[in-house]
Amino acid sequence: MSSSPLDHLTQLLAKLPGLGPRSARRAVLDLLKRREAVMLPLIESLRDVAVQVQSCPLCGNWDVVSPCSICRDEKRDETILCVVEDVADLWALERSRAFKGRYHVLGGTLSALDGIRPADLKIDKLVARVSNGGIQEVILALGATVEGQTTAHYVAERLARTGVSITRLAHGLPVGGELDYLDDGTLTAALRARQKAE
Amino acid sequence: MSSSPLDHLTQLLAKLPGLGPRSARRAVLDLLKRREAVMLPLIESLRDVAVQVQSCPLCGNWDVVSPCSICRDEKRDETILCVVEDVADLWALERSRAFKGRYHVLGGTLSALDGIRPADLKIDKLVARVSNGGIQEVILALGATVEGQTTAHYVAERLARTGVSITRLAHGLPVGGELDYLDDGTLTAALRARQKAE
Repeated sequence: MSSSPLDHLTQLLAKLPGLGPRSARRAVLDLLKRREAVMLPLIESLRDVAVQVQSCPLCGNWDVVSPCSICRDEKRDETILCVVEDVADLWALERSRAFKGRYHVLGGTLSALDGIRPADLKIDKLVARVSNGGIQEVILALGATVEGQTTAHYVAERLARTGVSITRLAHGLPVGGELDYLDDGTLTAALRARQKAE
Repeated sequence: MSSSPLDHLTQLLAKLPGLGPRSARRAVLDLLKRREAVMLPLIESLRDVAVQVQSCPLCGNWDVVSPCSICRDEKRDETILCVVEDVADLWALERSRAFKGRYHVLGGTLSALDGIRPADLKIDKLVARVSNGGIQEVILALGATVEGQTTAHYVAERLARTGVSITRLAHGLPVGGELDYLDDGTLTAALRARQKAE
């Protein structure tokens, strides 16, 4: 029978995204079985992260150094700023290795439903950062959702008077995507933004 | 960009059952965001479990006391022993509150494919435990899989000379199950084991 410390650990693990009560129980049993190989290193690693990792005061990324290693990296182009909803999106873009500028993490999207207003996101900070000069292009890399696009419109409006060039990610076929699996919205966007075949 | 301690934590979390690299990344970001509410309590809880929880030398259950609280509980019927593959199965039976005897965790199932032989499971220990006397019935609560049933046959054979009564869980319709969603094997088993309507 699961006694108190095991129950407590199960409840905490069940709070993580992607884990429910059932998978949390399986995770606890797995941790007990692999005490030396997983449980003890996990405790150590969590402690390291809790102590060392902080939010970058400039862009909002998580890192062990402050400002973060991206904001510090002088090889990166500081004239291009990529605005993302979340650190997860920043990491996804970094994995693609397609962007070599700086980032700005908003911390979410505007949402009337969830009561998230402009003041709840780092929009003022973004406007201040762009107004300070040195930035020529702001890429709004926000999700192609209603909330993402609402936020993009709002941010673009707020940045309009800075005179900086504002762009957004292209919509279209995902690489490897088949037409008959795509939704109408994506197909329409891909058709409208069609390009000359090379 | 994810720097070394974050990568390390992501890799460790990705080793847990039910989490892959993608969900582990989401879990790490969630932990960072909910540092006080989840990350710090999780470190504490993992440490408690690592220090306090041990495997019961009698039945193989995990508990903070040794022998475990089930083996200690004098209200439980020590003449009935329920043999399970794993502690997860023991916990599932406990949640059902349908069994009030003692347990014996084998630690897995026989599997030619995975090279798991009788010596790798706690079968000798089970035979010794039953031979010591005092047990009248052994319930083989093993999975209705090829490996589970192979193991059940083997264990039943090993226990035959002890003269104890050996039973297994009934096969049939799961409660709430609809006939046309059931596999043929279960339907056949349910038909063969049909009982008088009350």
